[in-house]
Amino acid sequence: MFVLVNLKTYPCDPIEVAEAVRDVNESTDARVAVAPQAANIASVAETGAETWAQHVDPIDYGSNTGHTLAESVADAGAVGTLINHSERRLKLADIDGSVQAAQRANLETVVCANNPAQIGAAAALGPDAVAVEPPELIGTGTPVSQADPDVVEDAVEAAQNVDSDVSVLCGAGISTGDDVVAAGDLGVEGVLLASGVAKADDPTAALEDLVEPL
Amino acid sequence: MFVLVNLKTYPCDPIEVAEAVRDVNESTDARVAVAPQAANIASVAETGAETWAQHVDPIDYGSNTGHTLAESVADAGAVGTLINHSERRLKLADIDGSVQAAQRANLETVVCANNPAQIGAAAALGPDAVAVEPPELIGTGTPVSQADPDVVEDAVEAAQNVDSDVSVLCGAGISTGDDVVAAGDLGVEGVLLASGVAKADDPTAALEDLVEPL
Amino acid sequence: MFVLVNLKTYPCDPIEVAEAVRDVNESTDARVAVAPQAANIASVAETGAETWAQHVDPIDYGSNTGHTLAESVADAGAVGTLINHSERRLKLADIDGSVQAAQRANLETVVCANNPAQIGAAAALGPDAVAVEPPELIGTGTPVSQADPDVVEDAVEAAQNVDSDVSVLCGAGISTGDDVVAAGDLGVEGVLLASGVAKADDPTAALEDLVEPL
Amino acid sequence: MFVLVNLKTYPCDPIEVAEAVRDVNESTDARVAVAPQAANIASVAETGAETWAQHVDPIDYGSNTGHTLAESVADAGAVGTLINHSERRLKLADIDGSVQAAQRANLETVVCANNPAQIGAAAALGPDAVAVEPPELIGTGTPVSQADPDVVEDAVEAAQNVDSDVSVLCGAGISTGDDVVAAGDLGVEGVLLASGVAKADDPTAALEDLVEPL
Repeated sequence: MFVLVNLKTYPCDPIEVAEAVRDVNESTDARVAVAPQAANIASVAETGAETWAQHVDPIDYGSNTGHTLAESVADAGAVGTLINHSERRLKLADIDGSVQAAQRANLETVVCANNPAQIGAAAALGPDAVAVEPPELIGTGTPVSQADPDVVEDAVEAAQNVDSDVSVLCGAGISTGDDVVAAGDLGVEGVLLASGVAKADDPTAALEDLVEPL
Repeated sequence: MFVLVNLKTYPCDPIEVAEAVRDVNESTDARVAVAPQAANIASVAETGAETWAQHVDPIDYGSNTGHTLAESVADAGAVGTLINHSERRLKLADIDGSVQAAQRANLETVVCANNPAQIGAAAALGPDAVAVEPPELIGTGTPVSQADPDVVEDAVEAAQNVDSDVSVLCGAGISTGDDVVAAGDLGVEGVLLASGVAKADDPTAALEDLVEPL
Repeated sequence: MFVLVNLKTYPCDPIEVAEAVRDVNESTDARVAVAPQAANIASVAETGAETWAQHVDPIDYGSNTGHTLAESVADAGAVGTLINHSERRLKLADIDGSVQAAQRANLETVVCANNPAQIGAAAALGPDAVAVEPPELIGTGTPVSQADPDVVEDAVEAAQNVDSDVSVLCGAGISTGDDVVAAGDLGVEGVLLASGVAKADDPTAALEDLVEPL
Repeated sequence: MFVLVNLKTYPCDPIEVAEAVRDVNESTDARVAVAPQAANIASVAETGAETWAQHVDPIDYGSNTGHTLAESVADAGAVGTLINHSERRLKLADIDGSVQAAQRANLETVVCANNPAQIGAAAALGPDAVAVEPPELIGTGTPVSQADPDVVEDAVEAAQNVDSDVSVLCGAGISTGDDVVAAGDLGVEGVLLASGVAKADDPTAALEDLVEPL
């Protein structure tokens, strides 16, 4: 299982969470990574944790002010990127452009979407993975794998129907190891986490609990 | 073949073009329709021409100022709508929401996209049809069916791969009957037109030339 | 006082409300107008009610699909337009462009904004009027003139400081004649209304109550 | 004079330009600073050059994925930020929110705009400075101070009319010291530069030429 911890713009110490991610990753079969803000990618990557961007723009080198260039986050140490997170929704043409920009910079890509139909659409753009996150469950503490297992199974089917090479992740409300196991039983290959780890008093303990049953 | 004449915000007389659409539709096996601005839908529909909206928003009845409600354009006489035209690109989640809004109002749906990958994505959202329009050819007078036949054939294949019930149209630069025939030979079931008819001195003659070889 | 009834995408009969607006306008010293959706402007204007658009785009005649051209809503019968309503916020450059487009089409302009600082900014773009509507009060039934009189007075001051020719309106939660009188006492020359009239069982009675104390 | 070098997403070495900015700043009366991409702020700030962000979002700590938090760029070493650059235009309400976010994080603020009317609007939001950059001149090599001196003088007047505490900068096409002197003669207190320095073979020499006549 792939466990990606999204730090959003939480008031956490990104280095502390990154070190927890690095340490727990070494002690488990799961693959654990962290996605800090762009300004923190370099310092987070220096910890040795697998580091992801939260977003890249559909642009190339050139006259783009205030944008996130895939090559720049890659140079800073990112190895992958989220695209079209529900807190950073993009136009269809720009998701396509961002996937292409990320692939150009050798970043692994996870395109997020809200429901199975949009997951099928995201899979058609050829990313490495898609992630279904029902917006109404994000930040609730109610895991998608329990609150709406059908949406996860339907998302897996929708993605496979379009492109069987595209992995499926899920997110929203996941905070315990049982949630991750339940998600895996529904057919996904990974999960997106956020507040459960990023806001924990002890991120290492939170992550250890999470990967323990895997 | 389905021939949809998009009036955009051209300085044309929408009633004159609508009457041409209505008259030519009656004299040909092709199906000819017209898409005026929202403010002109009611008067255009009164001509008896098949009338489409250029866009509907991903909304329901409620507190939405300055939006286009699917039910309102349907009540005004529209029977279908374009969604995600390259001059009105939407977020992926909003294309999904606009398709659902249009279906709720019994509007036929054509989702536009730039290239075969995006056409596959659009098809995954379950519209009646998708339309591939390479942005670099829009308004050039160089027909997509001639300038880039591969993109049309690849779009047909991408859509069928995702959902074989979704029709495929194409657009960009189409202005003659030969262009339409060539498009049909590439596997599409219709075309999007704009300036070739809307800006013609004699829209009826332009449309008659267009459908003559069909 | 200017009373503008915004129909948003409410499930009301726009003709019924327009007839109420027309009739009440004739029986009062206040100026009463109605802003339907673009698709309903022509039929609403035919009632004889003063008709406004809810939005116009910062465009000219040309290749713009799914947009609202100022000239088209003017041709359909609108005499004014809202711009930058909180449900249709625009980029600063596009507010400027929309004001210019509306002026080109001889539409009266009311630019909405959330607070006194933004009201000053809106006034700097040279519209006929600005309207302060605190987003947190919209649709609450709690009138801005009572819940937050300071924001109204500060907005009047901010606009006058920038351009004393720009009128100031206010909106959010206004539903009674006392609310309108209170707003006038704070220095505004008009109010924006919506659900209080548009969703009333008897729009004429609702409007008569509203203008009675004026 | 304040000289801010915007690195956009140019294929330059941000450290090399930053070192040039730092060195030239020490040898001149002008104040010279550099605005790299968010992912490079920390490493650029470590050179000792005065470092700016290219953009901050109108957000606070919380659930915001793929956004730029003012506090995060300040923690990484930025002391100021551009807002509403023509390549990253924002909604009016979001410019207001971004200015407030930047002030909360003690970042100096420069709000960009296209013309004198928009400059007046930007000044009404209370930033430290505004910068007029006619979009049609950006990247042309034709300096705004020469191609359109009226727009600069009118921008100075528009800003002072609204808030005399707000400084005015200008940008677009500026690449020589004479351009900067000419801009100063028109009443501005600084300039925005980009390709003239960022793409120079020898950024130090380019900057030295630029500040030499000051």
